Amino acid sequence: MIPEKVMKSLSVSTPSKIVLLVLDGMGDIRRGGLTPLEAAATPNLDRLARESSLGLTDPISPGITPGSGPAHISLFGYDPIRYQIGRGILEAAGIEMALTSDDVATRGNFASMDSEGKLTDRRAGRIPSEENRRLIELLSRSIREIDGAEVILKTVKEHRFVAVFRGKGLDGRVADTDPQVLGRVSLDPEPLAPEAAKTAEIAKKFIKRMNEVLKNERPANTGLLRGFAKLPEIPSMRELFKLKPACIATYPMYRGLASLVGMEMLKTGETIADEFATLKERWAEHDFFFIHVKKTDSYGEDGNFPAKVKVIEEVDRSLPTLLGLKPAVIAITGDHSTPCALSAHSWHPNPFLLRSDYVRADGRGRFSEAECARGCLGRMSACEAMPLMLGNALKLEKFGA
Amino acid sequence: MIPEKVMKSLSVSTPSKIVLLVLDGMGDIRRGGLTPLEAAATPNLDRLARESSLGLTDPISPGITPGSGPAHISLFGYDPIRYQIGRGILEAAGIEMALTSDDVATRGNFASMDSEGKLTDRRAGRIPSEENRRLIELLSRSIREIDGAEVILKTVKEHRFVAVFRGKGLDGRVADTDPQVLGRVSLDPEPLAPEAAKTAEIAKKFIKRMNEVLKNERPANTGLLRGFAKLPEIPSMRELFKLKPACIATYPMYRGLASLVGMEMLKTGETIADEFATLKERWAEHDFFFIHVKKTDSYGEDGNFPAKVKVIEEVDRSLPTLLGLKPAVIAITGDHSTPCALSAHSWHPNPFLLRSDYVRADGRGRFSEAECARGCLGRMSACEAMPLMLGNALKLEKFGA
Repeated sequence: MIPEKVMKSLSVSTPSKIVLLVLDGMGDIRRGGLTPLEAAATPNLDRLARESSLGLTDPISPGITPGSGPAHISLFGYDPIRYQIGRGILEAAGIEMALTSDDVATRGNFASMDSEGKLTDRRAGRIPSEENRRLIELLSRSIREIDGAEVILKTVKEHRFVAVFRGKGLDGRVADTDPQVLGRVSLDPEPLAPEAAKTAEIAKKFIKRMNEVLKNERPANTGLLRGFAKLPEIPSMRELFKLKPACIATYPMYRGLASLVGMEMLKTGETIADEFATLKERWAEHDFFFIHVKKTDSYGEDGNFPAKVKVIEEVDRSLPTLLGLKPAVIAITGDHSTPCALSAHSWHPNPFLLRSDYVRADGRGRFSEAECARGCLGRMSACEAMPLMLGNALKLEKFGA
Repeated sequence: MIPEKVMKSLSVSTPSKIVLLVLDGMGDIRRGGLTPLEAAATPNLDRLARESSLGLTDPISPGITPGSGPAHISLFGYDPIRYQIGRGILEAAGIEMALTSDDVATRGNFASMDSEGKLTDRRAGRIPSEENRRLIELLSRSIREIDGAEVILKTVKEHRFVAVFRGKGLDGRVADTDPQVLGRVSLDPEPLAPEAAKTAEIAKKFIKRMNEVLKNERPANTGLLRGFAKLPEIPSMRELFKLKPACIATYPMYRGLASLVGMEMLKTGETIADEFATLKERWAEHDFFFIHVKKTDSYGEDGNFPAKVKVIEEVDRSLPTLLGLKPAVIAITGDHSTPCALSAHSWHPNPFLLRSDYVRADGRGRFSEAECARGCLGRMSACEAMPLMLGNALKLEKFGA
């Protein structure tokens, strides 16, 4: 991919508008002869495909199955190996906590231990979110600060919470405390680099104080911390691409990811139609829109082929709203594949469709994995999607004389 | 390609089995309208192709013709530019010498010189291997050690031998002594880095003593040393990919290459059927098998189109043995192309076939260069083949959350 320094020197702000529509986990493999994309009735997508360039994108590199974090980072035009987002940061971003560069965020689990401190349930019986909120309030009242670092605790849901340590000189290179098996005492948060000694010490004291506060609680009488991480030092999309970007997503994690690269979060409803309605309402305010559809992935994870087909058809029905706005560039793709047969994310490349007034249209009448495999964009890295969108929107100047 | 550190963090050991079948130099260009792959009757390969993903792989990068060393290193999942295997090491590995990290290996040629020391034949008339063995015995008896370094000499064949210097602090950065032209005296083994001064001095003394021992021999009265090299510091396939790999190959050089990345050498016979029989016998013991078929390359080098076709057909007849074992993943490819029209290795990308329960099958009914060019894997670097095989064998965890 092109170096960031070069990208910054080429990108220019123009009025042209780009829409990146991501159907999470869209790509699939065949079952009973068809993939969900092939099985779905998608007249609007198919019409669009005919006047688009098609291709396949590898989220990270061939054979590698990505989590949602790196898969989106790549789609947003960043090197997903260079910008690895820690679990703690993802969890905090997911509940839209505003983090600063002084923060170390961790993903917490409420857990149960016996009188000897040995873990009996790593998830405290998946306590209800209500109970989680009560415990977080209790802990927040008792533990506000440790060794000069502010302690910020937030409920996620069920047994999951976020613990953020905020202070100068903190470092994310601290080991998980979760031993991953029952019958053992939780591990000490060991520093993984000398610079993280202070942070590890604060985390250790936090755990001790948490255990005191929770000692008479049941079943959640302790907590485990994982994924210590700081905010990545990632340039914003405004800085790198001169865009004024917005995110339309219903799920917190994707909103969080988008906020990490500087997108504005647009308030939207719960349905796909709501998301497209938001696009229309806010059309004048931005020049880049990331629309995220979650349920293709959720049904892929469930192995629910017919439901995945229905979500694709629902998107197709909403597509005219998008087309009516006449964006300069439309890209439609997945972040990664989630084949129903695997009920999990996979390494399969994503179908990718690119429409602008300047594409070499493939003239293929379907939007599917197989048609994209024969498209003129060939197989490329997902992190090249953003430069391609910008190029097609005439937002990149010539490189060199 | 994905950094090794990331690969190590993702790879997991599972019972699923992978077979990588390499037809050396398989890829070709058309002569009389067909390539050898297209001309061959390959009903089993064609049936397999129908349910596989196809693509083309560049051994190094477009336009670059590789030797067998880098071409295989790439197929084994390593960066062939980073891990360049010196000629001396390749020659020693080829005769299955057990090398240590204290060794500097060189490729030797017996040669002829006149009374003034000027070279008259750089290969000493390609003396018979028997004569080579006699001379190596003579030299080995006289020269056992120089300046504290052990000297180990082994016959390869005809005029070729290996000289290994074994001792602490040796360095491979020493220049060849072969002037590459007749009528000149052989060059001094000059150090190419200050750290190699000691090694160069040892080599110089070795050459002087060798010339004394050989002074009354004819035609081989001297020797030339090339390709001074140490073992590369290459992580094993076990370390990098968590595999328990095995090599089935009849030619020493490929066995040597495989041993450099930690494969177990399986004893096998001389024919292709023998190699597949070995696969079946040793099936339970390993989770990764590299099977190497040499003669496609040999006949390519000879420009012998019909013989190359016959080797491909012979592999096809043995294929049912492999298919019957039901590997989780089958990859069939070449290391590089060896077009009959060039009688040499070439830069043309390799046909690549990948079969697993999870591939997006292309449904193409032939395995050939042209069909692979239209396959859904597109064109990729050969060093991505290993991550793809691992992904398809479900041997890689998710990257990031």
